[in-house]
Amino acid sequence: MGPRYLMYGDISTKAAHMLSLPKVSDFFTRLIQRVSPKSYQQAFGEVYVTQKFLENFCGDQVRFLARSFAVPGNHLGQQSHGFRWPYGPVAIITPFNFPLEIPVLQLMGALYMGNKPVLKVDSKVSIVMEQMLRLLHTCGLPVEDVDFINSDGKTMNKLLLEMILDHEVVLNLQANPRMTLFTGSSRVAEKLALDLRGRVKLEDAGFDWKILGPDVHQEDYTAWVCDQDAYACSGQKCSAQSLLFMHENWSKTSLLSKLKDLAERRKLTDLTIGPVLTVTTDSMLEHVNKLLEIPGSKLLFGGRPLEDHSIPSIYGAIKPTAVYVPLEEIMKDNNFELVTRNIRTLSVVLDALERMHNHLTAAVVSNDPLFVQEVIGKTVNGTTYAGLRARTTGAPQNHWFGPAGDPRGAGIGTPEAIKLVWSCHREVIYDFGPVSKNWEIPPST
Amino acid sequence: MGPRYLMYGDISTKAAHMLSLPKVSDFFTRLIQRVSPKSYQQAFGEVYVTQKFLENFCGDQVRFLARSFAVPGNHLGQQSHGFRWPYGPVAIITPFNFPLEIPVLQLMGALYMGNKPVLKVDSKVSIVMEQMLRLLHTCGLPVEDVDFINSDGKTMNKLLLEMILDHEVVLNLQANPRMTLFTGSSRVAEKLALDLRGRVKLEDAGFDWKILGPDVHQEDYTAWVCDQDAYACSGQKCSAQSLLFMHENWSKTSLLSKLKDLAERRKLTDLTIGPVLTVTTDSMLEHVNKLLEIPGSKLLFGGRPLEDHSIPSIYGAIKPTAVYVPLEEIMKDNNFELVTRNIRTLSVVLDALERMHNHLTAAVVSNDPLFVQEVIGKTVNGTTYAGLRARTTGAPQNHWFGPAGDPRGAGIGTPEAIKLVWSCHREVIYDFGPVSKNWEIPPST
Amino acid sequence: MGPRYLMYGDISTKAAHMLSLPKVSDFFTRLIQRVSPKSYQQAFGEVYVTQKFLENFCGDQVRFLARSFAVPGNHLGQQSHGFRWPYGPVAIITPFNFPLEIPVLQLMGALYMGNKPVLKVDSKVSIVMEQMLRLLHTCGLPVEDVDFINSDGKTMNKLLLEMILDHEVVLNLQANPRMTLFTGSSRVAEKLALDLRGRVKLEDAGFDWKILGPDVHQEDYTAWVCDQDAYACSGQKCSAQSLLFMHENWSKTSLLSKLKDLAERRKLTDLTIGPVLTVTTDSMLEHVNKLLEIPGSKLLFGGRPLEDHSIPSIYGAIKPTAVYVPLEEIMKDNNFELVTRNIRTLSVVLDALERMHNHLTAAVVSNDPLFVQEVIGKTVNGTTYAGLRARTTGAPQNHWFGPAGDPRGAGIGTPEAIKLVWSCHREVIYDFGPVSKNWEIPPST
Amino acid sequence: MGPRYLMYGDISTKAAHMLSLPKVSDFFTRLIQRVSPKSYQQAFGEVYVTQKFLENFCGDQVRFLARSFAVPGNHLGQQSHGFRWPYGPVAIITPFNFPLEIPVLQLMGALYMGNKPVLKVDSKVSIVMEQMLRLLHTCGLPVEDVDFINSDGKTMNKLLLEMILDHEVVLNLQANPRMTLFTGSSRVAEKLALDLRGRVKLEDAGFDWKILGPDVHQEDYTAWVCDQDAYACSGQKCSAQSLLFMHENWSKTSLLSKLKDLAERRKLTDLTIGPVLTVTTDSMLEHVNKLLEIPGSKLLFGGRPLEDHSIPSIYGAIKPTAVYVPLEEIMKDNNFELVTRNIRTLSVVLDALERMHNHLTAAVVSNDPLFVQEVIGKTVNGTTYAGLRARTTGAPQNHWFGPAGDPRGAGIGTPEAIKLVWSCHREVIYDFGPVSKNWEIPPST
Repeated sequence: MGPRYLMYGDISTKAAHMLSLPKVSDFFTRLIQRVSPKSYQQAFGEVYVTQKFLENFCGDQVRFLARSFAVPGNHLGQQSHGFRWPYGPVAIITPFNFPLEIPVLQLMGALYMGNKPVLKVDSKVSIVMEQMLRLLHTCGLPVEDVDFINSDGKTMNKLLLEMILDHEVVLNLQANPRMTLFTGSSRVAEKLALDLRGRVKLEDAGFDWKILGPDVHQEDYTAWVCDQDAYACSGQKCSAQSLLFMHENWSKTSLLSKLKDLAERRKLTDLTIGPVLTVTTDSMLEHVNKLLEIPGSKLLFGGRPLEDHSIPSIYGAIKPTAVYVPLEEIMKDNNFELVTRNIRTLSVVLDALERMHNHLTAAVVSNDPLFVQEVIGKTVNGTTYAGLRARTTGAPQNHWFGPAGDPRGAGIGTPEAIKLVWSCHREVIYDFGPVSKNWEIPPST
Repeated sequence: MGPRYLMYGDISTKAAHMLSLPKVSDFFTRLIQRVSPKSYQQAFGEVYVTQKFLENFCGDQVRFLARSFAVPGNHLGQQSHGFRWPYGPVAIITPFNFPLEIPVLQLMGALYMGNKPVLKVDSKVSIVMEQMLRLLHTCGLPVEDVDFINSDGKTMNKLLLEMILDHEVVLNLQANPRMTLFTGSSRVAEKLALDLRGRVKLEDAGFDWKILGPDVHQEDYTAWVCDQDAYACSGQKCSAQSLLFMHENWSKTSLLSKLKDLAERRKLTDLTIGPVLTVTTDSMLEHVNKLLEIPGSKLLFGGRPLEDHSIPSIYGAIKPTAVYVPLEEIMKDNNFELVTRNIRTLSVVLDALERMHNHLTAAVVSNDPLFVQEVIGKTVNGTTYAGLRARTTGAPQNHWFGPAGDPRGAGIGTPEAIKLVWSCHREVIYDFGPVSKNWEIPPST
Repeated sequence: MGPRYLMYGDISTKAAHMLSLPKVSDFFTRLIQRVSPKSYQQAFGEVYVTQKFLENFCGDQVRFLARSFAVPGNHLGQQSHGFRWPYGPVAIITPFNFPLEIPVLQLMGALYMGNKPVLKVDSKVSIVMEQMLRLLHTCGLPVEDVDFINSDGKTMNKLLLEMILDHEVVLNLQANPRMTLFTGSSRVAEKLALDLRGRVKLEDAGFDWKILGPDVHQEDYTAWVCDQDAYACSGQKCSAQSLLFMHENWSKTSLLSKLKDLAERRKLTDLTIGPVLTVTTDSMLEHVNKLLEIPGSKLLFGGRPLEDHSIPSIYGAIKPTAVYVPLEEIMKDNNFELVTRNIRTLSVVLDALERMHNHLTAAVVSNDPLFVQEVIGKTVNGTTYAGLRARTTGAPQNHWFGPAGDPRGAGIGTPEAIKLVWSCHREVIYDFGPVSKNWEIPPST
Repeated sequence: MGPRYLMYGDISTKAAHMLSLPKVSDFFTRLIQRVSPKSYQQAFGEVYVTQKFLENFCGDQVRFLARSFAVPGNHLGQQSHGFRWPYGPVAIITPFNFPLEIPVLQLMGALYMGNKPVLKVDSKVSIVMEQMLRLLHTCGLPVEDVDFINSDGKTMNKLLLEMILDHEVVLNLQANPRMTLFTGSSRVAEKLALDLRGRVKLEDAGFDWKILGPDVHQEDYTAWVCDQDAYACSGQKCSAQSLLFMHENWSKTSLLSKLKDLAERRKLTDLTIGPVLTVTTDSMLEHVNKLLEIPGSKLLFGGRPLEDHSIPSIYGAIKPTAVYVPLEEIMKDNNFELVTRNIRTLSVVLDALERMHNHLTAAVVSNDPLFVQEVIGKTVNGTTYAGLRARTTGAPQNHWFGPAGDPRGAGIGTPEAIKLVWSCHREVIYDFGPVSKNWEIPPST
């Protein structure tokens, strides 16, 4: 495997350099914008994170991922080695909201660890990855190392099942994926887990919360982070802030009015607000109205369709919207499910916090160590940000991003994520002897 | 969690000391023999490995399992932390063949990482663990930390499903297991994976092979290891050697006759051979006969029922048996499935090697580094032993034991196994600031 | 080395169990009290930490210290391995203030990593270690594994030099220590570093400071920790708090009067205050008086000799003492050296903080993350405690204890400390081939 | 420190890319050849290793070097963190034989970990590093981050001492180096260790051996590796093979005649042989003659001055030379010192092996695991190569290179080397509480 690790170090070096060239990064940024509605800055963010990720695996860093460990055995000549071993054939299925970053990071992770991946990207946006694969081929990626499939989800599901079923009958078929990485909706994730009998790693959509703690600092900064977390990419990041719990100390501040001002400066022309690809306008407005039926709830801002646009009606198009719901109401069972229905362009502002379950990301905005400690200790959440600069979105390549609390949960991007998702433990015990010269056959046991 | 980690360090220290007392280890050894047919030495082996495992987690070693890492962030005051986080409620299901070692190692692993386990041991042998739990309670284990269920497999399956289904409806029910560890047959493992939609870690039965390489050393030693690997515990270890590939250089030696002599000195009186709990005598002899129908195959030894015994007919009772099958025959598709049917008291001796797929353990008996390298590099196998002292059974607590090549695969016993099976990654990014005094609200993105 | 690692796991298991027996721990506690003036609780603390340390290296944990890592090479068959390798012959020199804990932790660390140590403990207290070695021998320590020398410091120094000089002439002499661990005064440490040309690891005495930050919490608790840090063991711990910087917010509290009350309840009868073994009463009182000559300074409490005692005049015997010195005065060059003269039973209370250099331990008593971050970021200090429960003394076996900022600095007790102090990196590159069949001799370079 | 880590990731990315450009790498290759006599390939090797090293620390890999770990404490809110902390001001002194690779790898390592280095390169070759610093400045290295000194060794020694002495008097002087890395001759290394009282890390010259084991493989390949190890760079690498032990099985082969042929094809015109900068021709020939006075020794080849050259007489110029000395003679005390005098262009061929002490590199040419295991287990050697492709020279950036067995020993190039050489352990225990509400002041201890 030695030369293969070095080849991938070289591919990463070259591809990272290509993405650092302004004309290349501009090309991919604009290509992303063509298929996934987000601002230039947000689209460029994907390209930048992808470049930085590739820089992380230049030179020898791919082979360093394959670092193993060894422990002395029970006698001279015995030593046990723990390796991270590739699965062999694997599959990768990625969504529409990050057309470049998610597939590149997962694909390269799979390749770095020695797997043979088949890749399927949401067909609405797969042109981005198609172009990126050409760039990677130019940088030295052998064409036979990656199979790239363009299909709808159903076809892919059928294909995976056939490969798996084949696996039962024809043991030698190389193509059956021993592991499938899926990033996307929880519904499809659960179906895949069933179909593939758990041979999956999943990063499904979150319903992500933020808590503003009792210590009030930096109003402007906090409002700005809330606006970005909730409304950037029209709230279609899997890490978008969907629920904001606010300590009563914050209600004395002008945070909400600042948040309203920030949300209202978003506009279609620069795609700081844009179409929602998976829910219609009517469906979102209906959800807002249902929330407003909860006693004590009120519309903070938004709640109306976008105007003067040519967005097709199969997509959603509403203004950045926030609904206030009293905490005591949200805790009632029937409301809880309603409030936590994952329609991402809505943000619900509450007074306090409770009933938090496994979600993808979370934020605890507080510099009080005891408050932070309590919230983190009592939740089993994925990537969690804490401190006065806490956010829910904008995860870079330098820290793990992914859910927690589920053995099927996947991470993305860091050396730890790559090793855990794209390899398994294999133990080899070398036991070369010698056998003592006085050794005699002992009794059977 | 600090004090909890220390408590488990203390429990382990005390329990390890108890098991080191001759009267306690003798009690458990004999109790194991009562329910699981194996020699005193083999049963004592379980107690000893359990003691050594507990010694490994004395003092601060439980809290050292919870070691996290941190990496500097993008600005002053930001730091990302990677934790191994408990799942919360988990389930453990373990088989009949290791009534003490497997449940203790997995149970304590689950507890060390902070989980709340429910434990079910095969009801034929669960008395061993019932006694061990009393010992652990005496050593300080809080009674509320472990739920111990005595039931048949069907009831357990139903229970797990109900808990999972409840999970969908009643979000607050604490008891739904977020992860289930199963050790046992592949058939049940696959069903559980389906029922629990992949929220499992599996260590299923292997069909384990051994290869004798071209360099012949230490005939006596090799014959003795083969006999122990194939016939100890009547071949009912999940790591038992089922298939022996032999380089032609070995055919010039007296290895096979030595192996025959060793197999034939096994006797019922000391349980060096005994009943097979999961297959009948007729079923096993029928399998032998089918193998003997393959052209060129021959009976090396055994192939007859045990005599003078009172083993009930629902169990199996045959002499240690080996059948030779020519390599060119075994490679034919219809024979391949037949030869690899996992009836463990049979051993099939072959001329060479090929068509090896993921199995639990394997052995490459050779001191030739290039031969060893080639075999290991071309297989995706679980725990693999290499070198002239290579074996397939007898895994201790000091190295990882488990399958490879499957994302659902579980390990047992070592710090790495405990961390990978009984915890998940959770990333917390502390971002306490400060925010620069010159900070101004930037444009929306 | 395999069996040797297992033997040390067993020795640790047995010795830890022995120290857990009340009659054994009481014996060592009282023996420590006989030679090193400290309260029963403080002496018992040593025995307890030693027991817990030994528990940490039961079972396989000694061999786990020898864990190595491996990385794939440039071609098939090449792999580089990084080992922690023993030095071989080493020396250990330990002081009077911890007659059991320091020598056992360092000695066992040296043995665990595979070294052959010669041990010298301060002759005033070496009876404790002499008894402990007998206990270790009973637990299986081979008598030839440790050389125990009783001598004064000069003789030991001469011995080490002769061994080193011999090393230059007679290369085969096994006894020359390749590394010497010294715990004790800075003066002797520097002399040893010179004599042994840097083949040393040093843990020298600190002049340890504590800062009370701007956020006032838990007055009683803070006063109690200050009293313990400054006056337990009569201030003769190398981690004793010598300098207390106090934010002005604390001056409005009754902290100082509480500290006075706590200091004054200490008494000779239970050795909560006792003799100082290295400085006389006159010398300490003279130092107090010099401090009181600084403009604005004042005696807070103490400053008088102990009464009604039979402590020989070669030792020091004064009451717990604290002197206040204004911050602006302490910053003047001539005063700075005076204030930081390391006479440990004196505590100097100041208004604020600055001019902090490398010291052994430190404490930042604050729950304000930004304050804590700033103080830690601007200091290069050894073991540092931060938070409202911060202390300077009482380091246990579960975290690293030692200085920072010096390549000769030693740590004690944890797996990391043992590996860094008692072993060096050795890289072995296995390169078994094969050489390609097409290989031809290339041109010279 | 966050932004600083990112800046160094960027500098490395840019500098690695610059060195990958043919005109830049050619410039540095030829510049190296101007001052350090070696072939184009050997000089290019330095540039290439430097490029690959820089690639290893692109993106986030500098901050990943600062990865810390944390362990739960004794109670809620307590956690101990182990950091790798910079020393602060440090010094780097490097030799003539690798004018680019050694200073860049050590300098960048020092900077990556957060230190403030002063760099001195041997003045005969410092022009290479002067040019490289300009390249680094262009890539973003702040000019104030590195002090570059051009001086002879004596001046540097005086400077270091003055800085250290100043340190004693003026505590606030930032410039005193807390650690000095020295690569060069053992004599100067020992003097520096004395002068700086051990605040050093040393990589001194080796007298490196190779053993050909009992299993004979690949004659041509082995002869070629021996020729390269002994005579490339005219034997002036610190890793050059100086002593070759040969199992008698090899004496039946044509290895020695092949080695002679390879040595004799080296020529001045392409610098595959060239001047020795530190020893004169006469001095080397005198050493050869003394060896030839040993009974039974004989000249294998070489042993004469180079002809037709303009190498100044202050340098050495002899043909590649090998002298055979019988093993029984070399073991006599007076001969041992003679044979092991480190004159690198001489190679001594022997029959077997013994009396091996700490040296920098070594090679065990054998594919017999038991032979390899025995040789490695009985030596305390630095970087050691084992297997049929074993060599002593040509260490790349992907594995540790450095001596073993000395606490002052330095490594170069890998993440482990950088962390161990350029940082120290600092432990910070966060202990934020809470203090229990029922807490009461306990008795003094």
